[in-house]
Amino acid sequence: MDTSAYLKAHIRTVPDWPAPGVQFRDITPLLQDPKVFRVLIDAFVHRYMVRGLRPDVVAGLDARGFIIGAVLAYELGLGFVPIRKKGKLPYTTVQESYELEYGSATVELHADAVQAGERVLLIDDLIATGGTMLAGKRLLEKLGAHVLEGAAIVALPSLGGMQRLRDNGLALHTLVEFDNG
Amino acid sequence: MDTSAYLKAHIRTVPDWPAPGVQFRDITPLLQDPKVFRVLIDAFVHRYMVRGLRPDVVAGLDARGFIIGAVLAYELGLGFVPIRKKGKLPYTTVQESYELEYGSATVELHADAVQAGERVLLIDDLIATGGTMLAGKRLLEKLGAHVLEGAAIVALPSLGGMQRLRDNGLALHTLVEFDNG
Repeated sequence: MDTSAYLKAHIRTVPDWPAPGVQFRDITPLLQDPKVFRVLIDAFVHRYMVRGLRPDVVAGLDARGFIIGAVLAYELGLGFVPIRKKGKLPYTTVQESYELEYGSATVELHADAVQAGERVLLIDDLIATGGTMLAGKRLLEKLGAHVLEGAAIVALPSLGGMQRLRDNGLALHTLVEFDNG
Repeated sequence: MDTSAYLKAHIRTVPDWPAPGVQFRDITPLLQDPKVFRVLIDAFVHRYMVRGLRPDVVAGLDARGFIIGAVLAYELGLGFVPIRKKGKLPYTTVQESYELEYGSATVELHADAVQAGERVLLIDDLIATGGTMLAGKRLLEKLGAHVLEGAAIVALPSLGGMQRLRDNGLALHTLVEFDNG
């Protein structure tokens, strides 16, 4: 079994959550098993050890992106910066809003979290509509940083986010794909 | 400079946030600097490598506890389980509510996240009133696990949480202390 199939076999699908008709892809079993957790993290670590892909800093999206992003930063010998939902970061921030199915959401980044010219790896657990990751990219670019790549464990390409992010100039790397959202 | 003083020098105090009179202790600068981040994580890793303190699993409190807890789990070769604010975990959960200054909050843990008899290390970034950490301890105990120790970067003993948690039978380990909340 290759790494992708091995990881996919440990993702739990929860039907009708958080709303009827949604197949929620639950990554917590990947984290809970020490061996699977190691395979998961190392799949990312090995990729970003390569010279051309090596970032200067890792940014994680609130909150599951913190789990993968923090370990990756530590293993690569880099710093970690959190991108958070509005109202969670105490210092001066830059903000970016994006549309949800109903209403909108805002994410924030500390204004001194990255330096102009830094190459940032942006991490979340899953790419669905891509709204949060695109907002994260824009936040980092507001500070003059370059987003090297957006990375996630799971891609749900049928929800359009993968294409949308690529159309907005973001290279992507994901480990597991589900066809039906 | 010892480790505690070194880490303390990298914590940013934000006055009057989130409310007037509060001195908020911002740990994000600890994470952002690769060298400081490494010293921070390794201070925990070295402690829990010792035989008698070695946990079976690491549980992190939403959301800053995910950052430290996930790296620690990876480095110790253990699994990581998230304890989350209500409504974030998709599978069957156990729940625990606790009082806030105004109103109450509820945290959840997946019912299959830990096994009866497992020794759990419970992690957050900061211990203030201790409400969240005590709720986390109770959740883990509902599933029959034993909480080996509660750990955090920062202790604010004047807010009473350190004493309260010890009074409730939880051993604690923190790296940095501020006297005035």
